[in-house]
Amino acid sequence: MSTEASAYRDLEARFRRMANLGGAIGVLHWDRSTMMPDGGADARTEQLATLSVLSHEMMCAPELAGLLDTAEAAPDGLDAWQSANLREMRRRWVHANAVPSELVEAMSRAASACERVWRKARPENDFAAVAPHLEEIMRLTREAGQAKAAALGLPLYDALMDQYEPGARAARIDAIFDDLAAFLPGFIDDVLARQAALPPPVWPQAPFPIDKQRALSRRLCQVIGFDFHHGRLDESAHPFTGGIPDDVRITTRYDEGEFVQAVMATVHETGHALYERGLPQEWRGQPVGCSRGMALHESQSLLIEMQACRSEAFLSFAGPLMAKAFGGDPKTWSVENLTRIYRIVERGLIRVEADEVTYPAHVIMRYRLEQALMADDLPVRDIPGAWAEGLDALLGVRPGDDRTGCLQDIHWYDGAVGYFPTYTLGALAAAQLFAAATEQDTDIVPAIGRGDFAPLLAWLGANVHQKASRFTSDEVMEQATGRPLDPKVFETHLRTRYLER
Amino acid sequence: MSTEASAYRDLEARFRRMANLGGAIGVLHWDRSTMMPDGGADARTEQLATLSVLSHEMMCAPELAGLLDTAEAAPDGLDAWQSANLREMRRRWVHANAVPSELVEAMSRAASACERVWRKARPENDFAAVAPHLEEIMRLTREAGQAKAAALGLPLYDALMDQYEPGARAARIDAIFDDLAAFLPGFIDDVLARQAALPPPVWPQAPFPIDKQRALSRRLCQVIGFDFHHGRLDESAHPFTGGIPDDVRITTRYDEGEFVQAVMATVHETGHALYERGLPQEWRGQPVGCSRGMALHESQSLLIEMQACRSEAFLSFAGPLMAKAFGGDPKTWSVENLTRIYRIVERGLIRVEADEVTYPAHVIMRYRLEQALMADDLPVRDIPGAWAEGLDALLGVRPGDDRTGCLQDIHWYDGAVGYFPTYTLGALAAAQLFAAATEQDTDIVPAIGRGDFAPLLAWLGANVHQKASRFTSDEVMEQATGRPLDPKVFETHLRTRYLER
Repeated sequence: MSTEASAYRDLEARFRRMANLGGAIGVLHWDRSTMMPDGGADARTEQLATLSVLSHEMMCAPELAGLLDTAEAAPDGLDAWQSANLREMRRRWVHANAVPSELVEAMSRAASACERVWRKARPENDFAAVAPHLEEIMRLTREAGQAKAAALGLPLYDALMDQYEPGARAARIDAIFDDLAAFLPGFIDDVLARQAALPPPVWPQAPFPIDKQRALSRRLCQVIGFDFHHGRLDESAHPFTGGIPDDVRITTRYDEGEFVQAVMATVHETGHALYERGLPQEWRGQPVGCSRGMALHESQSLLIEMQACRSEAFLSFAGPLMAKAFGGDPKTWSVENLTRIYRIVERGLIRVEADEVTYPAHVIMRYRLEQALMADDLPVRDIPGAWAEGLDALLGVRPGDDRTGCLQDIHWYDGAVGYFPTYTLGALAAAQLFAAATEQDTDIVPAIGRGDFAPLLAWLGANVHQKASRFTSDEVMEQATGRPLDPKVFETHLRTRYLER
Repeated sequence: MSTEASAYRDLEARFRRMANLGGAIGVLHWDRSTMMPDGGADARTEQLATLSVLSHEMMCAPELAGLLDTAEAAPDGLDAWQSANLREMRRRWVHANAVPSELVEAMSRAASACERVWRKARPENDFAAVAPHLEEIMRLTREAGQAKAAALGLPLYDALMDQYEPGARAARIDAIFDDLAAFLPGFIDDVLARQAALPPPVWPQAPFPIDKQRALSRRLCQVIGFDFHHGRLDESAHPFTGGIPDDVRITTRYDEGEFVQAVMATVHETGHALYERGLPQEWRGQPVGCSRGMALHESQSLLIEMQACRSEAFLSFAGPLMAKAFGGDPKTWSVENLTRIYRIVERGLIRVEADEVTYPAHVIMRYRLEQALMADDLPVRDIPGAWAEGLDALLGVRPGDDRTGCLQDIHWYDGAVGYFPTYTLGALAAAQLFAAATEQDTDIVPAIGRGDFAPLLAWLGANVHQKASRFTSDEVMEQATGRPLDPKVFETHLRTRYLER
């Protein structure tokens, strides 16, 4: 074996080891949110910190740079997947090694402290209490962003986004978001006017027993294609997807007074799970075998939730299952009524409760604010005012307090800057992928109406899941849909669903 | 700070990191047995292997030897707990560094292969299929034992036992087990004759609904003192105690046709859990803060199960709870009847199903066999014959096949040699500790009858749990009971319970 080939093999072994460590971290996170008794919290924090340090040490091992250089010196010896794997290794290496470890540690410590204060400040509506911590987070994030920008040859904010969505660039996203921002306010007016003219939906009568909801959630997961031999469905305060491709752990939450959200939380996480589970078996544990980025990941959950499961086809299939589980007036479970329930649009203040029409307004506002924060154009103390103005311009509402304003999301307080745009990029990609899929295979929608997701999954497997990180997100979109990400497809989807049906 | 003091501090930090890694490994093991879907098995094996290698690398880091030497050079700077901590660090270091890492890896690989074959060979009663693998395991274990013997200055078998029960020495255990082996056969005859002369117990009528058993198990755990803020009770194929002191994970198993075993499995694991939970808070993550050894650990589970929970006092408290849970003929739940049920003695073939009277016969036979195996006096192919003879001499029964003979336990097939004696050393210690406790605090037994374990726990806390690894097992026994481990106390316990009541 040549030195180059042996360097590449050595890299594969090292990254496999890091993946094993990452998998262990995933189980510990999942357990913390689903199983762990409260008294285990401090010890768990210590365990996770130790594993993170070990993982960071492996990624910053001095030999790694040399191995990457050697392997990259002979690209001809590698096939296309191996080359892409080497590219992804380098990408991770650059991100991890760009920031000095003292800064990584300072950020982790500051984020823990800030998050702790935020957990108290939010219910108490006390932005002033957390503002100094947030200032420190923003200062350190700018510092880390500068380091990454230098290493990647990118503007600061692009370098931060690149951690979550490789290849995301503000110049392009600005254009997409400006288009959406121009479209949304008028569109929301039209949708709300039309909605107001229609009779209100008939609401199903609570209580919805938890065990019935659990069985229904499990059933829907299975219908969509979740593999319980390689995964679990549990409960947590905030639904999430964790674990690894061969052992995907999704969670949802149940409320006896409400079942609408639980069902959609479950199918949303199922979409994430299908992506993980569908990643190529032969590239397990290698960077190229991982999901592409957070935008494409969100596209898979939103494609299942928003495109597939809020469709008439799916609701006509799910209605009888809901009727059987919860009983009551049969009219409640008609596809017409369920469609109306699952498509209510509101000018709400809370992002995580927003419908698909108003959601982008929340994201675009945050995206603009965090750019200003990173450019040092917006002092932390001015966030509440900028928040209110930004939301008002896009959505026509202003929060009455910070609890329902800038204290609502954990992201910034936890040091995550550059993440927000991926939600809306994911929504756009979901609409575009679903449009292409259903155009290329006209049986996809009718099959969903029969509770058969196999045609949709086959298309997603071939066009997204099996590609893992072999291509960039842009390449995946172009190969699958024939064109780059385009806000017009999403706008058409909204117009068709909310104004023409 | 002096160099010695700084070396000691550095050691504490390193061992804390290893403890964090160990805690993570504990959660992953627990999850594998309780939560993990089958399809996650291969990935979990990889995760655990990676964490084990990392842990071993930390323990074999070249700097560690120098730090230990430096810290040991100035013992006066350390208080008694710190000195004991340093001693325990060195102990672990010697064990880990005695065996070359190639041998550690070879053993781990051989054990995995052997265990896999054993899982098939046991139901198929095919000892011949697994014998070559077991030969390899025994060969490697002897090699590792020789290496440890040289490093510790001990005979080979003592060096192997020392991993599980520090300070265990065959010369002493031989004497204890010979005493027991002389006592048991005649005693078992007497007990069985007496049992045969009494009317048989009234058996509670199945089914025992699982949810009722679950609630009862949880209630009994709480009564005994299990802290659900720092632990969980779940279900697994084989009951076990896992996790860490601040997050103890115990498991039991339920069978709708049988509740007798589930209750005792739960209280047994609760005994282990109380020991872990009771370890000194200020020494978390340090070797001196860990439980002393497997014999003392087993003493805590057997003290709760055999001494406390099979007492008339406890059964008179638990009977009404069982009656309420399962109903049926009230006579079934009388203390007289429950006592008879929970004290049935049988000449059984299966160790894990054995009662406290016959259990030591199983252990002593295996102890003698594994000594012969390590001395190369017993070829693997001769195990079935030696097994039958050994058991016949002590218990008067011979297995009809290997499934109920030498294939029944995983230990040897998994490379654990030197572990078996700790079960019976634990039973002896349990009897001796309980006798001392109830003599020193005469309210312990009456309190148990009221469902109040606080007096017993206070005594165990002060005399065992809080001492962690500060002293040797022998010192713990002498301080708590005024004398070294003595088989006569156990024999008196058996005689009193089974012949005099």
